[in-house]
Amino acid sequence: MAIELKNLTKRADNYSAWYNELVVKADLAEQSDVRGCMVIKPYGYAIWEKIQQSLDRRFKETGVQNVYFPMLIPKSFLSKEADHVEGFAKECAVVTHYRLKNASDGSGVVVDPEAKLEEELIIRPTSETTIWNTYRKWIHSWRDLPVLCNQWCNVMRWEMRTRLFLRTSEFLWQEGHTAHATREEAEARAKQMIRLYADFVENEMAIPLVVGVKSETERFAGALDTYTIEAMMQDGKALQSGTSHFLGQNFGKAFDVQFVDKENKLDFAWATSWGVSTRLMGALIMTHSDDNGLVLPPNLAPIQVVIVPIYKGDDERTAFDEKLQALADSLRCRGLSVKYDNADNKRPGFKFADYELKGVPVRLVMGRRDLQNGTIEVMRRDTLEKETVAIQGIEERVETLLADIQKNIFTKAKTFLDAHIFPCDNYDEFKARVKDGGFFLCPWDGTAETEAKIKDDTQATVRCIPFDSDQSNPGIDMVSGKPAVCRAIIARSY
Amino acid sequence: MAIELKNLTKRADNYSAWYNELVVKADLAEQSDVRGCMVIKPYGYAIWEKIQQSLDRRFKETGVQNVYFPMLIPKSFLSKEADHVEGFAKECAVVTHYRLKNASDGSGVVVDPEAKLEEELIIRPTSETTIWNTYRKWIHSWRDLPVLCNQWCNVMRWEMRTRLFLRTSEFLWQEGHTAHATREEAEARAKQMIRLYADFVENEMAIPLVVGVKSETERFAGALDTYTIEAMMQDGKALQSGTSHFLGQNFGKAFDVQFVDKENKLDFAWATSWGVSTRLMGALIMTHSDDNGLVLPPNLAPIQVVIVPIYKGDDERTAFDEKLQALADSLRCRGLSVKYDNADNKRPGFKFADYELKGVPVRLVMGRRDLQNGTIEVMRRDTLEKETVAIQGIEERVETLLADIQKNIFTKAKTFLDAHIFPCDNYDEFKARVKDGGFFLCPWDGTAETEAKIKDDTQATVRCIPFDSDQSNPGIDMVSGKPAVCRAIIARSY
Repeated sequence: MAIELKNLTKRADNYSAWYNELVVKADLAEQSDVRGCMVIKPYGYAIWEKIQQSLDRRFKETGVQNVYFPMLIPKSFLSKEADHVEGFAKECAVVTHYRLKNASDGSGVVVDPEAKLEEELIIRPTSETTIWNTYRKWIHSWRDLPVLCNQWCNVMRWEMRTRLFLRTSEFLWQEGHTAHATREEAEARAKQMIRLYADFVENEMAIPLVVGVKSETERFAGALDTYTIEAMMQDGKALQSGTSHFLGQNFGKAFDVQFVDKENKLDFAWATSWGVSTRLMGALIMTHSDDNGLVLPPNLAPIQVVIVPIYKGDDERTAFDEKLQALADSLRCRGLSVKYDNADNKRPGFKFADYELKGVPVRLVMGRRDLQNGTIEVMRRDTLEKETVAIQGIEERVETLLADIQKNIFTKAKTFLDAHIFPCDNYDEFKARVKDGGFFLCPWDGTAETEAKIKDDTQATVRCIPFDSDQSNPGIDMVSGKPAVCRAIIARSY
Repeated sequence: MAIELKNLTKRADNYSAWYNELVVKADLAEQSDVRGCMVIKPYGYAIWEKIQQSLDRRFKETGVQNVYFPMLIPKSFLSKEADHVEGFAKECAVVTHYRLKNASDGSGVVVDPEAKLEEELIIRPTSETTIWNTYRKWIHSWRDLPVLCNQWCNVMRWEMRTRLFLRTSEFLWQEGHTAHATREEAEARAKQMIRLYADFVENEMAIPLVVGVKSETERFAGALDTYTIEAMMQDGKALQSGTSHFLGQNFGKAFDVQFVDKENKLDFAWATSWGVSTRLMGALIMTHSDDNGLVLPPNLAPIQVVIVPIYKGDDERTAFDEKLQALADSLRCRGLSVKYDNADNKRPGFKFADYELKGVPVRLVMGRRDLQNGTIEVMRRDTLEKETVAIQGIEERVETLLADIQKNIFTKAKTFLDAHIFPCDNYDEFKARVKDGGFFLCPWDGTAETEAKIKDDTQATVRCIPFDSDQSNPGIDMVSGKPAVCRAIIARSY
C-alpha cells in the first residue's frame, strides 16, 4: 500500500482535482466497483465515528431515542405524499426479484424469473414514508406524543454524477423523525435541530456557517419549511451541510396518523425530519485542508498527537522508547489520542509527510540532541510552525496547543467566510462576480421566476434566507426590479 | 400506545408464542409492512447499542478498525467463489432498475423500463466478495498485512419463515474481515474472535455457551472451518449466536489477492470473517426472561434502576421528589442508568407491572411510611424478592445487588445448560428424547450421511464439536455403528 505522498495538485491550480486526490491519498475513501458507491477506509471511518458519537450524544440530550426501520420501502408508500414522490421517485434503486439461480449454460448466476415480487421495493432514499406508516400504529392520543426517533443508516439515491463524500449513490447518515401534538411544538423542534447541527459543526468541526431557511424551490419534497446550514468552501462555493424540515401535517395526513388531543378532538400529528450525512466529511476536508494535505480539527482527529523519534540502531531506539512511551501514556491519561511511531522501516521524512497529509494536529519529534538536552520539537499542523521546547511540562503545552488549533482553524475559516459575503443589489455586478465564488446577500422578490432566471444565467441558487441578518428594508429585487421581500444568500454550490 | 400488560402467554403453555408476544409487549420490536423486515423500537435498540459498544471496544483492543463497504454487490462477484454462490445466491434481494416514473394512468409510480441496469446488483447477504475485490487493491506486500477491518451494517437474506430478531430478511450485524500473510495467523485470528464473542456473551449477556467447531455440512459457504458459539434456550433448543470462519485462501484466490511474502515469493492472502447480529437479542430474551416479562442482565439493561414514589397529591409528591431526585443523582454519579418515575397519570401497580415486563433489574419503591422511617423497598427483577432497607447506604447495596443479579442469572442459565447436556450413545434413546430439548453429546463418525439421517429422523443437527470436552475414546457412532471420530453436540435448533 505505497502512499503517493507527492504530486498532490495545488488548490490554486485545480481545487476540484486537489479535493479528489486528497480524499484518496489521505486514505479516507475510494471508489468501489459499484458505480457511485464508495468504500470508506479506516482513517475516514474513524473521523465519521467521532462525528457520530458527538452528534448522538447531543440528540439524546434533547430526548431523542435511536431506532431502526427497514431499508426497503414498498413502491406504493412513495406515492402517498404528492410532493415527496416527485422529489424521490426519480432516482431510486428498485428491488424486483428475490432469488438468483444458476445459468443453464453454466456461465454464472441469473435472476430467477419465478422470483418476481408482487410489488417492487425501493431502497430507502429517506424514510419519512415507512416511518409515518408505522407511527400510525404508535400514535393514538396526545399522551403518546411527542415521538422523537432517530436512526443511523445507509440510504440510496441514484446520482448520475458522483464525488467521494459530496455526492454518492449510497451514503451514510442519520435521519431524525419526530411527531408532535401541535404545530408550534413541531416548528420549535425543527429549529432546535438546525441550531444543534450548527453548534456541532461550528464547535467540533470548526466550520463557520450561515444558518437560515430555504426558498420554496429548494425545500425538501414534502416540507413546509426547510432550515439549512450552509458552509463556504475555499473556492467560495456553498456546501449545504445539514437540513431540518418542518413537515406540517403532510405525512400525518398521507399516512392517516390521527390522535385524540387534550380537548378530546381528533387531529393529525405534526412532523419534523432532519439529517446530516457523510457529506459532512467533504465539508471538513474542503474547509480546512491545504496543499500539504488534510488539516483536521483536534476535536475530531483520530490521532491528535503523533510522536516520532529520530534514532540510529536498536540501542538508541531503546533509549527513545523508554522516554517517549512514557510521554505517550502520560498524554493518553489526559484523554488524548496519541500515536507513538518508532517504526524502523520508514524514514523520518516519509513519516513527517505522511502525518502532514493525514492532518494530525500536533507532531512531536525527538532527536539525539533533544534526548540529551531534555527538549522536544513541537509542530502544529495548521500553521506548520515548529519550536523546540523543554519536555518538562509538555503535556500542558500540547493540551493548550490543541485547543488553540481548534480555535485557530475556526477563526481562519470564519474570517474567510466573512470576507466573502458580499451585499449586492446590482444584477450585472452579481453576474460578473458570482462565478469567482462567495455568498451574495441580495434583495429578492421571493418568486420562483427570479430564482430560475438567476440559475439559468449563472448556475447560482438561493442558498437560504439567513436567520441572523438584517432583514429590514430589503430593497429592490436585483433581477425583477420589484420590491424585495427579504435579503437572501445566493451562491454557486456543491 | 396502551401497553397490554396482561395475557402474556406462559412459557410452559407455548414457549414460541411467549417469545413472540414478549418481544412486542416489551416494546423491543415489531413486524413492519415489508415481509420479514422488522422495526426495532427505542427500548430494543437501546439494548442493541449497548451490545454494539461493548463489542466494538473489544474489537478495537485487538487492532480491528471500522470501515464501510457498499451495500450493493455486482451479481458476477457472487459467482467467483464456487461454494459461496451456492450458499447465498438462493435468497437475495436483486436490484434491477434505478428509476420509477409516473404511471400513465395516474395510478401512482411504476418501474421505468428504460432504467434497467446492465448488470443486476444484489443487496449484500454478507460482504466477503465485495471486500476481497477491494483488498486486491490494498494488499501487495507482506508489509500491508494483516488487514483487520470490521463494519456495522444491515444485510439482507430473503427468508421464507421469519421471527423477530431470530430470523428476519433484513438484520443488523457486524462483519469482520481480516487478511493475513500466513495460514497460522489467520487460523489464530478466527479462534481469537470466537473466544472474544464467547467472553462477551458470557460476561455481558450472562448467557453460558458451548464453543466449538462446526461440521463440514454446517460450515459457512466458502470456509475451511467455522467456529461457533451455541447457546441453549429455556426449551432446550440451540441458538447459534455467533460464528467465526477460517476461509483459507478461497477468497484470496477467487479475487486474485496476491502479495509478496518475506521470501520475495508471491502468495495468496489468507482470510477470516466473523459476525454476530441482532439475533443476539433473541438469545438474550429467550435465555433469561420469565412469565412476567423480560429479565435483563444489568450490564446491558438500558435502565438499571427505577425509582417509584407512592404519593397522594402535589404536596406529598414534592417531599418525595426532593429525596428521590437526590438518590437518583447519587446513583447516576456511580455510573448507573436510573429512571425516576413520579408520573401522576399511571397507578403504581401499572408501573410495577410495566417495569417487570421491561426487565429493569432493580426497582426501588418509597411509600409514605418509608419516607418517615428513612427506608426504601428494594426489589430484584431476577428473583422478584423484595426487602425494605435503610435508605442510608442504599447506593452500595444497589451496586452490589446489580453485580449479584448479573452473576445469578448467568449461574441459573449455566446450571440449566449443564443439566441439559446429555452424553448419549444409543440412537433409540436419542430419538426418543431429542424432541424434548437438550444438547446430546454423541459419538459421531464424522460423515455427512450420518448427519443427514439424524436430521431426517429428528430435525436435530450437529451443532458443533465442542472445544472444551473430552475427545479421547469417542466410541462408536450411534447411527452407523462405525468408529466415531469425535463426540459432537447434536440438538434441535432455532
